[in-house]
Amino acid sequence: MREIFEAELQQLGDDLRTMSEKVAQAIEDAGRALLDADLSLAQSVIASDRDIDDRERALDDECVRLLAQQAPVATDLRIVVSSLRMSASLERMGDLARHVAQVARRTYPKRALPEAVVPTFTQMNDAAVRVARRVTELLETRDLALALTIERDDDLLDLLHEQTFGVVLSPDWIGSVQETVDVTLASRFYERFGDHAVSIARRVSYLVTGDAPVELG
Amino acid sequence: MREIFEAELQQLGDDLRTMSEKVAQAIEDAGRALLDADLSLAQSVIASDRDIDDRERALDDECVRLLAQQAPVATDLRIVVSSLRMSASLERMGDLARHVAQVARRTYPKRALPEAVVPTFTQMNDAAVRVARRVTELLETRDLALALTIERDDDLLDLLHEQTFGVVLSPDWIGSVQETVDVTLASRFYERFGDHAVSIARRVSYLVTGDAPVELG
Repeated sequence: MREIFEAELQQLGDDLRTMSEKVAQAIEDAGRALLDADLSLAQSVIASDRDIDDRERALDDECVRLLAQQAPVATDLRIVVSSLRMSASLERMGDLARHVAQVARRTYPKRALPEAVVPTFTQMNDAAVRVARRVTELLETRDLALALTIERDDDLLDLLHEQTFGVVLSPDWIGSVQETVDVTLASRFYERFGDHAVSIARRVSYLVTGDAPVELG
Repeated sequence: MREIFEAELQQLGDDLRTMSEKVAQAIEDAGRALLDADLSLAQSVIASDRDIDDRERALDDECVRLLAQQAPVATDLRIVVSSLRMSASLERMGDLARHVAQVARRTYPKRALPEAVVPTFTQMNDAAVRVARRVTELLETRDLALALTIERDDDLLDLLHEQTFGVVLSPDWIGSVQETVDVTLASRFYERFGDHAVSIARRVSYLVTGDAPVELG
């Protein structure tokens, strides 16, 4: 019985990692779609989000099944409940990647971003891809040094989000109203993407250390 | 034993309703702060969000305790797992009310919203307050007619969100870049507020009917 349950918990971890890999791919492609005005890449991100959503549902069903059939306690229970939470965060990260891709698609063949914000968004996308990949690695290794780098990249995303506003609100800004709207939204999507990654990082830390995670504002 | 557990489930429901009442108050006050440029109201929403966050944590701890000690199955298990989900949605709704209040605070003593979008935001806030109050009522009564009205008000929020963009992107728009940014963000906050309310409504429907809830994009 215990052996089967161990295998089931292992499977839960594998499923989370697969979701996380898909999310990392999604944000990387969404970023390229946004920065290069690549329509087919944008379409593919939008289409693949359904797969991430399906994986969340399957993972949740599995968690509820495990709660019912195994009645886990202590660490096992924490793993199952945390998995429910982490799958929700990954699902939202997938949505946010899709939202970025939708901005790219809406303005195609024009690029959504004016030149003035391209450097900031390039950095923002690099940081988002990094956090997503590190979430995958953290789920694999539970190496808490990775959790720390995720927190740091999230701080960077917050800073770049502020920096975007700095560019948009400067007297030199010559973007159209549509560009202002798109830059504001896309920047917000990246900022939220980082928050969800941190939320996962804190849940993994909680599993490892037993210290309850603190939610971001 | 069963009697104690029944009382604990009852308490879980009461705690969710209290959270929901606080969220309804928060979005009502945040909307007034935004529309009337009322700084003290904005401050009070921002300060009270901590209380909502604390309630989520307490509710989650209680859910995990119940899972461990009662090992619920079937409907009871669904109630506990749904409570975990619904408390997360309510916590996010509280955050979004706080974000609206933060927009109001940032621009004080100026109102964040130019006249041209005030009618739309008035409707948006009315709809948001309605959905929050109906979530409270739905948690109390489990009357699925309320779930339907929440879905409809969410559709209205989506429509008003689009309408906001219509105003901002029209040739008549004379708002500053800062106003464009604030209107874009505040409108997005209301739109997400509605999504979370629908997510709760669907989870209650799931508890009543047994049909699995579908997440919004």
